[in-house]
Amino acid sequence: MHIDLDRNAGITLSEQIRSSIVDRIQSGLLLEGEKLPSVRNLAKCLNVSLMTVFHAYELLEQEGMIKRIQGKGTFIQGKTDRFRDRREEGPSMDWQNSVADYLPRAQYWRMMQTPLADVANLSMASLHESLIPTEWISEQLAQHAQLDHTLLTEYGPVQGDGSLREAVLPYFREKGILASPSEIMILNGSQQGIDLVASTFVGPGDTVVLEEPAYPCAIDVMRKRGATVYTIPIDAEGMQVDRLAALCDSRPPKLIYTNPTFQNPTGAVMSARRRAQLLELAQSYGSIILEDDATSDLYFGAEPPPPPIKSMDRHGHVIYLKGISKLISPGCRIGFLIANGTFITRLVSSKGISDLGSPLITQKALLPFFASSQLKKHAPLLREKLKERRDLVLRILNRSAPKGVHWNKPDGGLNIWLSLPPALNADDFHMIALQRGISFLPGHVCFPNQQLFHHLRLSFSYLDARQLEQAVMTLCSLLHDFLRSDRLSQRMMPI
Amino acid sequence: MHIDLDRNAGITLSEQIRSSIVDRIQSGLLLEGEKLPSVRNLAKCLNVSLMTVFHAYELLEQEGMIKRIQGKGTFIQGKTDRFRDRREEGPSMDWQNSVADYLPRAQYWRMMQTPLADVANLSMASLHESLIPTEWISEQLAQHAQLDHTLLTEYGPVQGDGSLREAVLPYFREKGILASPSEIMILNGSQQGIDLVASTFVGPGDTVVLEEPAYPCAIDVMRKRGATVYTIPIDAEGMQVDRLAALCDSRPPKLIYTNPTFQNPTGAVMSARRRAQLLELAQSYGSIILEDDATSDLYFGAEPPPPPIKSMDRHGHVIYLKGISKLISPGCRIGFLIANGTFITRLVSSKGISDLGSPLITQKALLPFFASSQLKKHAPLLREKLKERRDLVLRILNRSAPKGVHWNKPDGGLNIWLSLPPALNADDFHMIALQRGISFLPGHVCFPNQQLFHHLRLSFSYLDARQLEQAVMTLCSLLHDFLRSDRLSQRMMPI
Repeated sequence: MHIDLDRNAGITLSEQIRSSIVDRIQSGLLLEGEKLPSVRNLAKCLNVSLMTVFHAYELLEQEGMIKRIQGKGTFIQGKTDRFRDRREEGPSMDWQNSVADYLPRAQYWRMMQTPLADVANLSMASLHESLIPTEWISEQLAQHAQLDHTLLTEYGPVQGDGSLREAVLPYFREKGILASPSEIMILNGSQQGIDLVASTFVGPGDTVVLEEPAYPCAIDVMRKRGATVYTIPIDAEGMQVDRLAALCDSRPPKLIYTNPTFQNPTGAVMSARRRAQLLELAQSYGSIILEDDATSDLYFGAEPPPPPIKSMDRHGHVIYLKGISKLISPGCRIGFLIANGTFITRLVSSKGISDLGSPLITQKALLPFFASSQLKKHAPLLREKLKERRDLVLRILNRSAPKGVHWNKPDGGLNIWLSLPPALNADDFHMIALQRGISFLPGHVCFPNQQLFHHLRLSFSYLDARQLEQAVMTLCSLLHDFLRSDRLSQRMMPI
Repeated sequence: MHIDLDRNAGITLSEQIRSSIVDRIQSGLLLEGEKLPSVRNLAKCLNVSLMTVFHAYELLEQEGMIKRIQGKGTFIQGKTDRFRDRREEGPSMDWQNSVADYLPRAQYWRMMQTPLADVANLSMASLHESLIPTEWISEQLAQHAQLDHTLLTEYGPVQGDGSLREAVLPYFREKGILASPSEIMILNGSQQGIDLVASTFVGPGDTVVLEEPAYPCAIDVMRKRGATVYTIPIDAEGMQVDRLAALCDSRPPKLIYTNPTFQNPTGAVMSARRRAQLLELAQSYGSIILEDDATSDLYFGAEPPPPPIKSMDRHGHVIYLKGISKLISPGCRIGFLIANGTFITRLVSSKGISDLGSPLITQKALLPFFASSQLKKHAPLLREKLKERRDLVLRILNRSAPKGVHWNKPDGGLNIWLSLPPALNADDFHMIALQRGISFLPGHVCFPNQQLFHHLRLSFSYLDARQLEQAVMTLCSLLHDFLRSDRLSQRMMPI
């Protein structure tokens, strides 16, 4: 177990060890019954005092996360491994436990472990198949596969298909981003972009700023790189940039990751004013802004949201990511990265190292989508349908959710962010909901550092409309029971 | 510029700084005319003495790699940037130069920068389209695209399509590898496997062993992780495992990367005896073996090569990679990883973090290839055609190569490894060959540490047979001129 400790982070080493082990347990990387290293070994391995590790284990024991058995050692404690049977590997694989890894948490994989076959899925922020122009893309894919055999016989360019990089220019130009094809790279989905930017520019102890709450899989990436993560809270205007300014003086960030438009998970939109301030800060402190734009096309009002931060970027501070999974097709696994100067060169090199380039066939299949008017026809329809879904969920919540539960009204995107009374744990509620065949995303996985447990994210995009209605109604009724339960009456605090 | 220094590596810090800068220059990550950090700044940044950096710069200046201009600074020197125009970004992007990255070298990307449109390509270890069952796969792709729309509407499982993981079992069983589908992961090509294994298990200062020479893109990955790389030379029986045993006592490796069968670039085959010894060493020292098997199917003798190391692995020490780019199709960008115990769990988690999973459509297209007898028909034909090509090249070399040039006779794979007289530089010869429209891989990129410059790799798989014949004949005639040139008479040493 490799734990990156930051002695200048302003967080005690014991707390850093504790939260690193909690992350691993919550990700299912450490399973019930698994043995932790001894205090002595871990202290030696991390080059810290015995007391530091001892105290971390004490905290974990108080939380019921681990159990110390006299004469035997320290073990991961029950309840945590809810979804996965422990693998029975036999003792011959035990040596593997001593092989340290650089993998502190892995929320997406954890989520994918939940068996959701018969479950009404409010956890996937993904589009229902009726919202995706599937037949059209399938047709293109089939045509390209048969017309151009070199798509299968050649490694494509590492940077991505040149014709697609050309074809997307008008799409980005409309967002105010004037890029040349040499400043664009095609990715295996935008997640790869987060990973590449981090593996290229972020290393152990580098300061990274994330929003709080944040997109869970971005947290995974930054933790894996051993970054020291600071968080800036979100409000209705997005990331609270004034708080970031205060941080910058003591810890100028190497990288600031933001999701400015219909933020995942909160749905917040960063105001134009704050976008400009954020860019200014990055310029003052020599920071990189990683702008992850998954859903800016999915606005429900008459006007589009403020233009991307990238559109104001004159000095190459912003690396812009545009996934198409939430707009056209997750199955193609395609995303775009836009960067300038030496950044794009370095990132393309990095992509080459990581996989030698993406398959061409799926890139070609998307080409006519951008080259024709198809996208212009698709996007307004998608917005309309998603707005209907949002309105449906809001109607049900307004009508049927119990008092004490709060939620936002997102102006776009795929998610609604719900808050239970602070004494309640959305993870416990998720267990109940799963038994009734409903899943959602427990909000604590969206907190990079100190977790809050009373939030949850509902995605209204993945179910068909009738299922969606049914699921949210059931959820409301379950919420009533949950809020009335003993747990609440004993522990609820006034808000 | 971030440089991972290892104070226990037995290599001086100046030399580590020097070789790290050389790697960047040779990869094209530092371009002619680019300014290096001042001695003072770099020393501060790396926490070393001024003398250490000063000495490193001195070495680089002596080699003609950099130039110090009084009062202006230190700059990358000519000759190195042969293929790429310097980007004219204007001064406003200059701040980017101070952003340190974790990208010490990037050979593949560098290679892809060489404009090879009209060049007879002996540098790509890839199959000519006539050797690939393209129509068959295209047909499958088209069918799947039209039959199963969920391939485009869903994120697939992070671990890869379950039916394909099931379908490949007999293929691996024939190699002596008894895996279950849960022990197999599908990758974006095997390069992603190297990257995932490294990003999961290897970090700054961890000891990694590579063969010498080695597959260049594996070197890139390990350097990017900040590993301390040790090398073990290759002979006719593959990696010299006795030398590894000597190293293990002082520096037990965390990971040993090997290409045991038709090694890239030398074509060497590790004997069954050494395979067993290597596994035994890994067991004794708690090391991971990363066995990269790109070409074991491509044997030219009557009998297949010794079974993979993985087939003997009882305790989960071996992580096995099988790319299909050199067997079926590079364009599908698919590879397989096999691992056991917690290793597979951790690696799947890591894959989720890096890209949320690979596209399903290309996986489905390969499914019938493994599920039917197609592979059984394809492989023997491919072997036969590659053997013909190898024989053709050997015939020409035997007949026409100048004295002083040596080469191996590979029993499989795609490459022939040539050695010039040691005083000659294959990089210089590559410049000449490119002018005559022929490319190959200069061998020095295959050396992880101390580079040798008199080797080169010829791939006989990528050109059509007639072009291949012509290119190798021209190359031989160019070699005659090159060996006769002044350079040689002045500098050649007795072998």
